[in-house]
Amino acid sequence: MSFEITKALLDTLKADVAEGRDSAIHAVFAELHPADIAALIDRLNLDDAVYAYRLLENETAADVLTELDEDLREELLNSLTSKEIAEDVLEHVDSDDAADMMSGLSEDKRREVIALLEDQEQREGIQELLTYEEGTAGALMGKEVITVRAEWTVVRAIVDMRQQAQEIEHIYTIYVVDKDDRLFGILPLKDLLFSSESTRTLIKHICDTDVVSVEVDTEAEEVVRRMKKYDVVVLPVVDANNVLLGRITFDDVMDVMSEEATEDYQLASGISEDVDAMDTPFIQMRARLPWLLIGLAGGVVSSRIIAQYEGQLQIAPAMAFFMPLIAATAGNVGVQSSAIVVQGLAAGSMRNVNMLSRMWKELRVALLSAVVCGTLIFAVNLLLQQDQALTYTVSIALFSVILTAAMFGTIIPLALDRFEVDPALATGPFVTTLNDIFGLLTYFTVGHLMYGLFP
Amino acid sequence: MSFEITKALLDTLKADVAEGRDSAIHAVFAELHPADIAALIDRLNLDDAVYAYRLLENETAADVLTELDEDLREELLNSLTSKEIAEDVLEHVDSDDAADMMSGLSEDKRREVIALLEDQEQREGIQELLTYEEGTAGALMGKEVITVRAEWTVVRAIVDMRQQAQEIEHIYTIYVVDKDDRLFGILPLKDLLFSSESTRTLIKHICDTDVVSVEVDTEAEEVVRRMKKYDVVVLPVVDANNVLLGRITFDDVMDVMSEEATEDYQLASGISEDVDAMDTPFIQMRARLPWLLIGLAGGVVSSRIIAQYEGQLQIAPAMAFFMPLIAATAGNVGVQSSAIVVQGLAAGSMRNVNMLSRMWKELRVALLSAVVCGTLIFAVNLLLQQDQALTYTVSIALFSVILTAAMFGTIIPLALDRFEVDPALATGPFVTTLNDIFGLLTYFTVGHLMYGLFP
Repeated sequence: MSFEITKALLDTLKADVAEGRDSAIHAVFAELHPADIAALIDRLNLDDAVYAYRLLENETAADVLTELDEDLREELLNSLTSKEIAEDVLEHVDSDDAADMMSGLSEDKRREVIALLEDQEQREGIQELLTYEEGTAGALMGKEVITVRAEWTVVRAIVDMRQQAQEIEHIYTIYVVDKDDRLFGILPLKDLLFSSESTRTLIKHICDTDVVSVEVDTEAEEVVRRMKKYDVVVLPVVDANNVLLGRITFDDVMDVMSEEATEDYQLASGISEDVDAMDTPFIQMRARLPWLLIGLAGGVVSSRIIAQYEGQLQIAPAMAFFMPLIAATAGNVGVQSSAIVVQGLAAGSMRNVNMLSRMWKELRVALLSAVVCGTLIFAVNLLLQQDQALTYTVSIALFSVILTAAMFGTIIPLALDRFEVDPALATGPFVTTLNDIFGLLTYFTVGHLMYGLFP
Repeated sequence: MSFEITKALLDTLKADVAEGRDSAIHAVFAELHPADIAALIDRLNLDDAVYAYRLLENETAADVLTELDEDLREELLNSLTSKEIAEDVLEHVDSDDAADMMSGLSEDKRREVIALLEDQEQREGIQELLTYEEGTAGALMGKEVITVRAEWTVVRAIVDMRQQAQEIEHIYTIYVVDKDDRLFGILPLKDLLFSSESTRTLIKHICDTDVVSVEVDTEAEEVVRRMKKYDVVVLPVVDANNVLLGRITFDDVMDVMSEEATEDYQLASGISEDVDAMDTPFIQMRARLPWLLIGLAGGVVSSRIIAQYEGQLQIAPAMAFFMPLIAATAGNVGVQSSAIVVQGLAAGSMRNVNMLSRMWKELRVALLSAVVCGTLIFAVNLLLQQDQALTYTVSIALFSVILTAAMFGTIIPLALDRFEVDPALATGPFVTTLNDIFGLLTYFTVGHLMYGLFP
């Protein structure tokens, strides 16, 4: 069951594709789960991928397509005719995956494909899904739900469910709606198991009416939070009148979670687009350059500030020695503080927290760190037998810089969040650069004072 | 459905607890989902939390307990007697949650509680779960599974399932096993819906034998990867002989995903323990200090290096201006490169990649960035009318530093991974500090050369 792509397997597959040994390729794919086939095809170049993909049977091919890397999937779909997409692919995938695939096609091709769909319900479902804004519950949901009416008897419901089930590949939950299609409850599998013993019972008397749902325009992040909090596998999606529109499954939510984590992590590391190791050097460079340029601009500003203190550096050249220490510590503290805030905001635990009380808490953390670091560096400088003025300068500046960096690190993400900008932007190079600059300013100001006191 | 904790609600609750207005507290809790009650109780101090908790009915109380913050849950459990835990709590929770709760108790209390459990199957189940190592599939799984035999008829299976279902709160999947309890397949809900029409059919003829499973000693990260890859809600866990031991549900996996993401993000931000904004200043400081100390140590090393070049700084004091720029860029590039590697390793896409080919790719990304940044800073220094030697020094050093920082950033996490250390350790202050130091060395070496060339 545990499948790993080895270099040998990949080389063999590439050779098979190059030589057109279709039966050998068939034999490899026959053993594998569609997700594994997709992982293999992801590693081929476009022409080889198209070749290998075309050898798959329709149902497997459709499953593989939903698992493929987005870019490759788009290119593969564009290599298929509208008729192939409508009949061979969309027939076999859930409406949410179908809508995802459609959104990668050109406007014209999309219209063509949709017109070619024979099932009216499917056509309307995909068209509806395409209208929802990306990043909302509507864009995540699929239309495949099994519903029974609250006022039906169990026996009537079972007959109806069987009919509905023929159209749907995976059944997760059975939804109970009222006569206006408003969500009334869910019918757990457990009750269904016992149901044939009580065929005259009404559904509304056995169903569970404590249902967690989301409205169609809820943000994807909130969908994740709710699914995680309430431990639900499938989340029903309703409109403003509580009419059941569709359902979001755990796999879509896992994808959202991974994307969010990746995005936060990349922002914290100074990478602005979603790139990975497989992207071309140019694309990777493009995602990384903005942050390097922010750092560079910060560096130029720092250079101007230091230039202002050239006189001070001539009096005390040794002050140059500790510039990196001050700048690095300021940067580190700032990133830590902002990371705590960003995570608190993401987890929702910081939504209703007063900004001042948050800063007071952070100030206490910073004070503790500042005392430890300031004392330590004081001891080190005594050991290194630095002159008195420098010893005091470094410790006092470090102490102040830790406090201010913590405050910047706390305020900036909170402020960004208030203006509805992603607070994760604040971590990484942005906060580091700002704190570098401010740290140097503090350092030279303190130095100027100290060298006045201890000439 | 959308519940948010407001300050007003929290204040009211605190006042109600203080005044002992039990019916008012009951009224608040009655409206809420256990997860929301848990979120509220999480915000109380221990005494108030115990008071509020004891007002809950047993079944709700147990659900709330599983949702509580781990530290508070442990303290709450310790305030209950062994008998209360065994009879009121463990009766109402799944075995995996029960085992989690037990692991927070003292050895003695744990033994006492387990001895008090009346149901032998439950007792043995919890004891078995406690033997698995943390971070493995065994520690995540629960024992609650519904199983039917492959050679049974559908009608026999249904009778048996109904009996099993009485013991189990949530039914996710029905597992099919052979006569030796080895996993044979799963019986989808869909087939069950149609089953009464074919009561004589054997289960083995209608079940799905393509089952994704994990072995009991599989690492939690691999469990997540597999669930995500194969889109399964519940993952069966088997032993080395494929005997079905239990199942892992999506909610446990979501928790693992969140923890992993948090850990990576915190490591990248220089936070070494799992802390959040709610922890005390001291605990937060403790989690942050190690990274600050690494940075501090790096700063001291930097100061020694610069001291070595004091002569050079006397010849060219303006070299001090650009030290922060060089150090910051080196740090930024290093973090970016290591983040790409760490994510590639986490996603599994970099497992079988040759180190040299990875470095060659990264070198090309770095070359592009180095050309852009080096040229830009050259232009800036021309504009600022810096002297020729400094202009060349900064650009050439920046160019070299970007290349070497990218190489460090790539090699270090790959090397850590090879020695089975978490590669995420490499991002954050570790790589930054190393690159700061190396960057300054490069800068002064280049400066020494350039000021020789352009005196």
